[in-house]
Amino acid sequence: MRLVVTGAAGRMGRMLIRTIAESEGVTLSGALARADSPLLGQDAGTLAGLPPMGVPVTSDVLAAFVATDGVIDFTSPTSSVNFASLAAQARIAHVIGTTGFGPDDLARLEAASWHAPVVRSGNMSLGVNLLAGLVRRVAKTLGENVDIEILEMHHRMKVDAPSGTALLLGEAAAAGRNVPLDERSVRVRDGHTGPRRPGDIGFAALRGGSVVGDHTVVFAAAGERLELSHRAEDRTIFARGAVRAALWARGRKPGLYSMADVLDLAEV
Amino acid sequence: MRLVVTGAAGRMGRMLIRTIAESEGVTLSGALARADSPLLGQDAGTLAGLPPMGVPVTSDVLAAFVATDGVIDFTSPTSSVNFASLAAQARIAHVIGTTGFGPDDLARLEAASWHAPVVRSGNMSLGVNLLAGLVRRVAKTLGENVDIEILEMHHRMKVDAPSGTALLLGEAAAAGRNVPLDERSVRVRDGHTGPRRPGDIGFAALRGGSVVGDHTVVFAAAGERLELSHRAEDRTIFARGAVRAALWARGRKPGLYSMADVLDLAEV
Amino acid sequence: MRLVVTGAAGRMGRMLIRTIAESEGVTLSGALARADSPLLGQDAGTLAGLPPMGVPVTSDVLAAFVATDGVIDFTSPTSSVNFASLAAQARIAHVIGTTGFGPDDLARLEAASWHAPVVRSGNMSLGVNLLAGLVRRVAKTLGENVDIEILEMHHRMKVDAPSGTALLLGEAAAAGRNVPLDERSVRVRDGHTGPRRPGDIGFAALRGGSVVGDHTVVFAAAGERLELSHRAEDRTIFARGAVRAALWARGRKPGLYSMADVLDLAEV
Amino acid sequence: MRLVVTGAAGRMGRMLIRTIAESEGVTLSGALARADSPLLGQDAGTLAGLPPMGVPVTSDVLAAFVATDGVIDFTSPTSSVNFASLAAQARIAHVIGTTGFGPDDLARLEAASWHAPVVRSGNMSLGVNLLAGLVRRVAKTLGENVDIEILEMHHRMKVDAPSGTALLLGEAAAAGRNVPLDERSVRVRDGHTGPRRPGDIGFAALRGGSVVGDHTVVFAAAGERLELSHRAEDRTIFARGAVRAALWARGRKPGLYSMADVLDLAEV
Repeated sequence: MRLVVTGAAGRMGRMLIRTIAESEGVTLSGALARADSPLLGQDAGTLAGLPPMGVPVTSDVLAAFVATDGVIDFTSPTSSVNFASLAAQARIAHVIGTTGFGPDDLARLEAASWHAPVVRSGNMSLGVNLLAGLVRRVAKTLGENVDIEILEMHHRMKVDAPSGTALLLGEAAAAGRNVPLDERSVRVRDGHTGPRRPGDIGFAALRGGSVVGDHTVVFAAAGERLELSHRAEDRTIFARGAVRAALWARGRKPGLYSMADVLDLAEV
Repeated sequence: MRLVVTGAAGRMGRMLIRTIAESEGVTLSGALARADSPLLGQDAGTLAGLPPMGVPVTSDVLAAFVATDGVIDFTSPTSSVNFASLAAQARIAHVIGTTGFGPDDLARLEAASWHAPVVRSGNMSLGVNLLAGLVRRVAKTLGENVDIEILEMHHRMKVDAPSGTALLLGEAAAAGRNVPLDERSVRVRDGHTGPRRPGDIGFAALRGGSVVGDHTVVFAAAGERLELSHRAEDRTIFARGAVRAALWARGRKPGLYSMADVLDLAEV
Repeated sequence: MRLVVTGAAGRMGRMLIRTIAESEGVTLSGALARADSPLLGQDAGTLAGLPPMGVPVTSDVLAAFVATDGVIDFTSPTSSVNFASLAAQARIAHVIGTTGFGPDDLARLEAASWHAPVVRSGNMSLGVNLLAGLVRRVAKTLGENVDIEILEMHHRMKVDAPSGTALLLGEAAAAGRNVPLDERSVRVRDGHTGPRRPGDIGFAALRGGSVVGDHTVVFAAAGERLELSHRAEDRTIFARGAVRAALWARGRKPGLYSMADVLDLAEV
Repeated sequence: MRLVVTGAAGRMGRMLIRTIAESEGVTLSGALARADSPLLGQDAGTLAGLPPMGVPVTSDVLAAFVATDGVIDFTSPTSSVNFASLAAQARIAHVIGTTGFGPDDLARLEAASWHAPVVRSGNMSLGVNLLAGLVRRVAKTLGENVDIEILEMHHRMKVDAPSGTALLLGEAAAAGRNVPLDERSVRVRDGHTGPRRPGDIGFAALRGGSVVGDHTVVFAAAGERLELSHRAEDRTIFARGAVRAALWARGRKPGLYSMADVLDLAEV
């Protein structure tokens, strides 16, 4: 499968180039950067710290899209919405790891998905998406007699809490119970809290060192606990997840898909 | 739902009596002990350290079975096979936590299950059975690029390794991959082992202190790990699992069921 | 060593009686209850679910204290202060697991400790006290380049957060760094928090199920983490810690001691 | 402090150059490679993926050693023994992360240490060495009533088990108990093992994915557990440990030191 990488000059773009080079069944057919990038014309392989690949960095999106089977895109909402329109016209798969879309952006992505397969996720790691499916399933099975707590740890530079992934896991738990998360989430425990209320979904955040991202969902019942954890060791897992999504999306009918679809987890 | 407890004079029997007393929707209708038990005639509640329940311990199985809706049975293979025949005649649910059945015993249990619902499991804890379902599902989804390791810790008195529950989890992993466990399991690592072979399922056992039973299944891929753990805090969880199984089995059509059926995990 | 148990009719008192019966080197010489207890005169062994021990429950403190070598006391601040005066007169060791003392109470305990050895701790578990010593040592060694986070999980009925033991561990960390805990502790993380400040000591609390008490102190540096955890499986560890403290205190010179002294951890 | 890096052309050498560039209080004064290296003359900064540092790679050891304060050396036993002689003559600190020394090699290192400070460790990570000190201390304090188990997990390519670091931790536990490790270690548990023997030190190894190295030492008693864990997130921690060792060794009197000395852990 031929793939184009957007934002090829950036840190994530270079990681995507390296990941495509290391993956079976995919080849890099294009590397896109902005029209004002000083790196236009450079070889994508060299840029990524690899031997030359014969693919020069370009800003010609149309030319890149007509000669490929899919595009992997971790850029900005504005850029990704534009890429989505062009990918739809070219009828190629569009894998989007960009975050921060507003409602208008999402509407435009959905419009694009009428013409080509679009896979979008705020976390492209296979493990986290699989974990979310398991959490929904377990929450549904166990009911409110079991207490759900979500713990995450990230590096000292992270500026918000809980992490977006912790919230994604909380949404999965709430969906399993068929309740709205915002009415049941407990984000602060300090001082006299009183006993835990049945049905609460608790969050706790640790910060320190260089932790890429650890998440644990605890299901605590009388006498036993189930703990489902994901540990991200390095950020390449997001690139690998995107490549897997592209391979899955190839030749698929138009539509807006999630990583749960890619993993066949929709019915877990 | 009315329930009879077998082996009422034993440690597990007394725990079952206490658990029934604390559970909603079930009442104790009979407490069986052997014909030679010195405790015949004692009140089952008193025996269990509770206020009297008006249920004397008896050895009259038939009388107990005609006046109940189900029986919970953690005894011995020989006794359980006999109870199964009588429960089948009485058309009542039979929940069996007994272990150590031979092939002939199992055939007789299956014969009994033509006439009444029988739920049998080597581990009646809800958490462990749920975990096994998750492990099978994850193993199936992730394939052999992901390394599976199974870790357990038990108290210092445990005489065998790996634990039966660790093997149950290994079977679930192997079933998810559609391979036979005994051809892929690695139970010893010592000295020069060479690199790990793809598809292996590794086991490791820790022993110490008074640990009731901790199990963790690790799915380790490049750059990320999923860890699914169960911690048993005390042995009452096995009694509670049995009561849940009885409630589920009531009025169900005859058949041989597992805890995966009780939890609706068959298709996870 | 002969030991008296106070509050013998209560849950902790009965557990202390059982623990003394199971421990080497100690025998029960007296079991005290209030003058209005309906259990006066009952055998202490029977009360604790054991065979009779020939020790009737009594309210005669003086008679009990002149015929013993030490007293183990988990009662109330008022009672413990009175016991301390009488133990001081009898020159016997006094092990105090009672919590909730005010400044006046503490002054009176100290006065009593001029005449006899007194061991007092808010957590008599050996493991937690050992952990606190390790935390102080590691905090001192590693300095503020390493981020300290303290995580605890307790059962769903616990009404306050962080746990007293988590705060004890936080005090140990702050002492190791020679800073006041209240100026550096972070108990809430929710929303936009900004990056972690060097020197902060973070707390997080999970609640659920029947967890007796788990505590973890994380020391997170760039590229590596040290995690020191304690798991309490059942409450008997507090009774065993008290017996060990009594054996240690026997014949020791008068003074106010902590479990760190008992464990010889003062200089860790 | 000026530092020379040996093996500058290798993976660890380049990492050491980057670490020195990022650390306070140290500067790179020399970068050594073999006389036949094709990289001689290249700038060390460029080699390490950094801006040029004005330090060309050279094979002239003597010239490098007379113009520096210390040398960091992760090469081979043969090379390190030679460097040790020359560093001794130059009276500069020698930090050795090389492994695999034979008895003769060690004798020559000790001879060199009569003239200059030498710090040698099989694991230069601060966390692991700190952990070893804690393990020795806890093992000494708790005695044989507490069961010690050592668990490690490493990536799928690791060819031996238990890991060298797990053995180092086992040695620390055995030293704390004042027993020889090889008489007490249990490396295999499979089938009917019988109950755990008091005083045993158990090992278990997990293999999978890309785990850099996780180690946990469990101290399991009746009713409670202490777990001391180290997680290595990436291999730069070994480089940072070496730089810290060099700063510590500067101006120190001649002698053979360990990381425990660097961390002031000798008396933990």
